Amino acid sequence: MAGVLSGVPRRVRVIEVGPRDGLQNEAVTVPAEDKVRFIELLAAAGFADVEATSFVSPKAIPKLADASEVFPRLDRAHGARYPVLVPNVRGLERAMAAGVTEIAVFTAASETFNKRNINATIEESLQNIAAVVAQARQAGVSVRGYISTCFGCPFEGEVPPAAVLDLALRLRDLGVDELSIGDTIGVATPNQIETVVGLLASRMPLEQIGLHLHDTRGTALANTLVALQMGVSCFDASAGGLGGCPFAPGAAGNLATEDLLYMLHGMGVETGVDLDKVVAASRFIASVLGHDLSSSYLRACAN
Amino acid sequence: MAGVLSGVPRRVRVIEVGPRDGLQNEAVTVPAEDKVRFIELLAAAGFADVEATSFVSPKAIPKLADASEVFPRLDRAHGARYPVLVPNVRGLERAMAAGVTEIAVFTAASETFNKRNINATIEESLQNIAAVVAQARQAGVSVRGYISTCFGCPFEGEVPPAAVLDLALRLRDLGVDELSIGDTIGVATPNQIETVVGLLASRMPLEQIGLHLHDTRGTALANTLVALQMGVSCFDASAGGLGGCPFAPGAAGNLATEDLLYMLHGMGVETGVDLDKVVAASRFIASVLGHDLSSSYLRACAN
Repeated sequence: MAGVLSGVPRRVRVIEVGPRDGLQNEAVTVPAEDKVRFIELLAAAGFADVEATSFVSPKAIPKLADASEVFPRLDRAHGARYPVLVPNVRGLERAMAAGVTEIAVFTAASETFNKRNINATIEESLQNIAAVVAQARQAGVSVRGYISTCFGCPFEGEVPPAAVLDLALRLRDLGVDELSIGDTIGVATPNQIETVVGLLASRMPLEQIGLHLHDTRGTALANTLVALQMGVSCFDASAGGLGGCPFAPGAAGNLATEDLLYMLHGMGVETGVDLDKVVAASRFIASVLGHDLSSSYLRACAN
Repeated sequence: MAGVLSGVPRRVRVIEVGPRDGLQNEAVTVPAEDKVRFIELLAAAGFADVEATSFVSPKAIPKLADASEVFPRLDRAHGARYPVLVPNVRGLERAMAAGVTEIAVFTAASETFNKRNINATIEESLQNIAAVVAQARQAGVSVRGYISTCFGCPFEGEVPPAAVLDLALRLRDLGVDELSIGDTIGVATPNQIETVVGLLASRMPLEQIGLHLHDTRGTALANTLVALQMGVSCFDASAGGLGGCPFAPGAAGNLATEDLLYMLHGMGVETGVDLDKVVAASRFIASVLGHDLSSSYLRACAN
């Protein structure tokens, strides 16, 4: 019975994705200067990585159309990396022109989701990613790879773990440095985490695997815990739980950074991040957006 | 790495506490007939135990002042037990007069909380409980014992696990059949669950230990998971997350039954409870209360 937590890493890297994965889903368009301030508040909180914006087509994600304006204004003094999302070679070129040195590419594990989300087959996405990665590596730009819908798809339902493994291996073979395994619609339960992480870990180092969990049904921290117990030490999270769920107004979206940090710090796991400063950053962006955020910790400490 | 979930029980008993622990904290006073309907909707969902009401002083908990009116009207055809909260011998007598056959007694593990909550020292509570248990057992009434603030107190901060064990053993020795170990203010993190459950399990059968978790900071399902991994198979939960947190308007209170069931069923753990019927019960009571409930699952499936 003793020692169920014995495998938990002593230190975890939390990748803050609120400025990108959060703000892209908001109704309000945040002015560039407020984006810059939000990102810098987060960097000052101690994150090693703050995903800053996305160089996708402004038509596809209008809320982040100002990426080329926001990125060059970011203060590098905090020592944080500022990865950005890049959909194709054109996006990479725009990103590099703005001074980007870390990017993330993306595809879904579900064919239907990929088609609906970015109008490409998974195979087409991989060809696209291959070109981006080749060019990025030549320029010394590091590449993270998002795989979305790894635990369920709103259109197809179940997603076979073998499909996730296959994609992960292909991305690795293309030269992607590390992977972010996403529960895009927040349906995963702990047994699925055990299955998928176990499968991936049988074929690649755990250090290359991060989790990107959504808290739509309240399971994100339980899923995090299983991954921690298996030795995963990299997790994406969004300040305040920012972003919500575009398919479900009022429902939670991304795992809230505050909730994750509260659990990790309570367990004695180091993150290097100051929870109070994250709360301050969330309160700032909530005031810009004009609504409360979904983080349970944030709501509890507001009272 | 494999098998982190291997200790999880195949079947779990979920004790629905919404009609008592939920409604006592609401601003609106629910009419007796709506309480009856809510309780029966929950019983029809398949719970073996629906905590129905509280026979505390109507002055102390005005929202449940109609306990003697509600209880006799409950339909026993569903086969559910309907335990009620009882603070003293007078409450027990009122409860038994209404037809009650299962009760719950309560004390806090934190001296200051007990004093503020029920104006008694823990020692006074135990004397009181001793008299209630003695009379209940003579009458063949089973007794559950709540220990609140086992993982933290809003006044004292940390609560020593040894104090929880001491209280648990004293309640057991008084004849309490099973214990509900409460994270009353929702501060626990998984390491605390491991410590406290491990300590209790070293001195009493796991079958006598249930957990009563609040989700104030989002950690309730992660805490549940650790307890499951250690073999705990009884959890309290509240339909819709009903009850909120009296100290934090808008913040989550009790672990939501829907969120717990979603995780358990996803993991293949049987509960005997129909999640859709719980959602229906929550929607009914939400319409009576006139506000949305905090359950993540409920919010996700509303969209």
